[in-house]
Amino acid sequence: MKRVSASFLPPISLQPAGKIPIYRQLYDWFRQAILDGRLRPAQRVPSTRNLAAELKISRIPVLNAFEQLHAEGYFETFIGAGTCVARSIPDDAVRPTASKLRPGQQRKVQRSGPRRMSRLAAAFTRLPEQSWLNNLGAFRVSLPALDHFPIGIWSKLVARHSRKPARGIMAYHDAMGHPPLREAIAKYLGAARGVRCDPSQILITTGSQQGLQLSALVLLDPHDAVCMEEPGYHGARHAFLSAGARLIPVPVDQEGVDVATIMRRARNARAVYITPSHQYPMGMTMSATRRMLLLNWAVRSGAWIIEDDYDSEYRFASRPIASLQGQDTDARVIYIGTFSKVMFPALRLGYVVVPKDLLPAFAAVRDAADVFSSTLYQAVITDFIQEGHFARHIRRMRMLYMERRTALVKAIRAEMEDLLEVIGAEAGMHLVALLPAGTNDEAVARSAAKQGISAQPLSSCYMNPPPRGGLILGYGGSSEPQIQDAIRKLRLCISASM
Amino acid sequence: MKRVSASFLPPISLQPAGKIPIYRQLYDWFRQAILDGRLRPAQRVPSTRNLAAELKISRIPVLNAFEQLHAEGYFETFIGAGTCVARSIPDDAVRPTASKLRPGQQRKVQRSGPRRMSRLAAAFTRLPEQSWLNNLGAFRVSLPALDHFPIGIWSKLVARHSRKPARGIMAYHDAMGHPPLREAIAKYLGAARGVRCDPSQILITTGSQQGLQLSALVLLDPHDAVCMEEPGYHGARHAFLSAGARLIPVPVDQEGVDVATIMRRARNARAVYITPSHQYPMGMTMSATRRMLLLNWAVRSGAWIIEDDYDSEYRFASRPIASLQGQDTDARVIYIGTFSKVMFPALRLGYVVVPKDLLPAFAAVRDAADVFSSTLYQAVITDFIQEGHFARHIRRMRMLYMERRTALVKAIRAEMEDLLEVIGAEAGMHLVALLPAGTNDEAVARSAAKQGISAQPLSSCYMNPPPRGGLILGYGGSSEPQIQDAIRKLRLCISASM
Repeated sequence: MKRVSASFLPPISLQPAGKIPIYRQLYDWFRQAILDGRLRPAQRVPSTRNLAAELKISRIPVLNAFEQLHAEGYFETFIGAGTCVARSIPDDAVRPTASKLRPGQQRKVQRSGPRRMSRLAAAFTRLPEQSWLNNLGAFRVSLPALDHFPIGIWSKLVARHSRKPARGIMAYHDAMGHPPLREAIAKYLGAARGVRCDPSQILITTGSQQGLQLSALVLLDPHDAVCMEEPGYHGARHAFLSAGARLIPVPVDQEGVDVATIMRRARNARAVYITPSHQYPMGMTMSATRRMLLLNWAVRSGAWIIEDDYDSEYRFASRPIASLQGQDTDARVIYIGTFSKVMFPALRLGYVVVPKDLLPAFAAVRDAADVFSSTLYQAVITDFIQEGHFARHIRRMRMLYMERRTALVKAIRAEMEDLLEVIGAEAGMHLVALLPAGTNDEAVARSAAKQGISAQPLSSCYMNPPPRGGLILGYGGSSEPQIQDAIRKLRLCISASM
Repeated sequence: MKRVSASFLPPISLQPAGKIPIYRQLYDWFRQAILDGRLRPAQRVPSTRNLAAELKISRIPVLNAFEQLHAEGYFETFIGAGTCVARSIPDDAVRPTASKLRPGQQRKVQRSGPRRMSRLAAAFTRLPEQSWLNNLGAFRVSLPALDHFPIGIWSKLVARHSRKPARGIMAYHDAMGHPPLREAIAKYLGAARGVRCDPSQILITTGSQQGLQLSALVLLDPHDAVCMEEPGYHGARHAFLSAGARLIPVPVDQEGVDVATIMRRARNARAVYITPSHQYPMGMTMSATRRMLLLNWAVRSGAWIIEDDYDSEYRFASRPIASLQGQDTDARVIYIGTFSKVMFPALRLGYVVVPKDLLPAFAAVRDAADVFSSTLYQAVITDFIQEGHFARHIRRMRMLYMERRTALVKAIRAEMEDLLEVIGAEAGMHLVALLPAGTNDEAVARSAAKQGISAQPLSSCYMNPPPRGGLILGYGGSSEPQIQDAIRKLRLCISASM
């Protein structure tokens, strides 16, 4: 290491054999010296010729470094007066870190202002930490049977599209999504879910969570009231909180959300968030009467209904329940769906069926949020649907999940009928098992997490204190042996927590 | 088509050879009849036996349909009294559409409430319509040279990752991103951009727009003031407006944003948005003095600086300018970058370098926005970087864009030196060409769009009336022959608009 002290400069250290070129080392040295105040505004610097001579290096890197320092405004040159540190550099420069101050050096230390974040961010960071739930062990909610996904077919379709250097797959794309996918989804939803829409109403999102966020931004002003199911989906709560909404919890019973309570207590609500096909997490189906009452109320009051149809593909005992959207003759329902559960979560594709008069607003808000969704997977899933793989995969998974649900219920009955009470319709990819009254479900879930089990505490779905603790047990991604094993472990966790 | 009139029912039409199963046709008919009021609450329906006999069909589909109607709550059964339409169905059901009313039928028609959207959505839909700019013709801003992208290498890497049915590529993933990619980005930014960070500070986003949106949600409460460059990036304006912020335009000159104006007029601003390496759209570099003044002011006042380093990889005349983030000793800078320009836009990957104390807030807000970014491309670009393709691609594109810029400037000089004045540093993927004073740049751009040219009017970057019109000409995605041709066409559009 060369260490040369130019007559009037602090010592410059250069590493001639280093990975960093000499011009860059010089540039960095001068810049840092100016930033931390060792070189002061208007202070003269040596000529490139003299500096090169003193440092015993070629003049070329010195010239390059000085040129850059000029270009960035650290140096200025006056004809006849040579080069100096720009006089416009502020005298109090950037607050030096203590370690950079030489002993005895005194600098006016700036006081650092507050580090305020938004009220939203502050509220979010005060929420209970749940990262302990993020393992992918048995009972992980919403996790599909990834090892049964037709990865061979899928990767062939991926290869088909990624080989073509088509502008269509690489360039900017419509904020609403890939047109053939929008068509395929409209067709699928019409046939399978009774949704009434045309392809122009389909907005492709990066998943149902983005659908919720965009709906919140389009529909809600800060402090607007939104009715939420209690217990309900925490992801929806967070999306509405992001828009500054006020949440009103509305109890659910065997017929779904209690519409009478909405009509009585939330007359001015701007929106109602519901999961009518398969209430999350409790699993009941909203009754025909409640659906009609809610729609009528929404039409009269001017409220919006946000229908989250997150896993309605899977219903074992009866036929799939038609969507609420299909009953809506006043375009009050914003219908949200996702491919995370029927396909796989890391696909990051979902959709919103948007009432026609809201389309420009959804497109603009989506553009401001993240412009558009990655195109490759949109093109791939379009083929996957159109070539029949999608329908076949759903059929196979419906059988598999029915078996897994049966295995889970059987295992609970065999191992701990006294400890867990299974509720919810025979549908979807999870069930709720209620714990004996007084049991702390979070304590049970935390101790289960240590055993690699991802059982979500039911209390996390409540805004008010829950009447009774429980566990949300996802069975979609858990094989039968995994289920048997996990239930045995869970029994110990529950017994220990009582 | 069978058309049978059951004694006390409106006529039921069944299509025996249709694609829709008979049980489904029956279910649909009853459900619709209840919804539009042809069947009233408590009205008796025939027994399954009688209905099957009347319709001359097997009893099985009738049983299936009735079971579903029971399950969904449209029917109820009383022992001894048979099946009837559920009495809880509201009498005013859903407002029938006029076409469904039989002649002479009178129904209480509900008045439909207002269709209010948020103030944000209303404001966005009032913005001038710019979809005419969305063509991918010559001069499209931010469009890279897609035909020079190493698609062969890329698609091999895609295939490598999509063949493996790895849980890692399909399951839920960290809201912060794929850890190996976060490491690769931290390393790259340290070396190439002088950014000081460790991998834990990297948040992977779906592009710089999401980085802006998340920053806005974490840092800004509604009505908080944000300083924006004038002219500036409209995407940033929209992101901050989404969070309810108040925008304060601050003029830019040859040294970048006018920091003195910020200090004088926006003392209480919560954040400043800047593009210091290559001001968008004007192209100048922020001077060293301004950088230090801004950092000092931010430290004292407690404001945040949002540094958008959108295309700093491409600088032709001098070395890349180090980031402002690297000069920040008080963790005031949120640094935003994107792969849309160095790679391709439909990749939808970008990143934010987050001050450590804000990490929990960014993670929570990202989770509420759209959970996490699709994993496949994250894994692929990690390999692309680590195997050296990324650095090589940037080097090749830097040469290509320099040539294209030179060709564009030469074509302007040759064809219309009198009409267009080129400004901005020799960097990036676009330049600004000022029009003769008094020319309406939107009129020019609209007439150019009709010729398949995507020239963005400079006025669209201003919040206040612009002092002079101009065109933002992207040259990254335009080949030299395309440039020659488009400039010739542009000359005619300009002449016609004067």
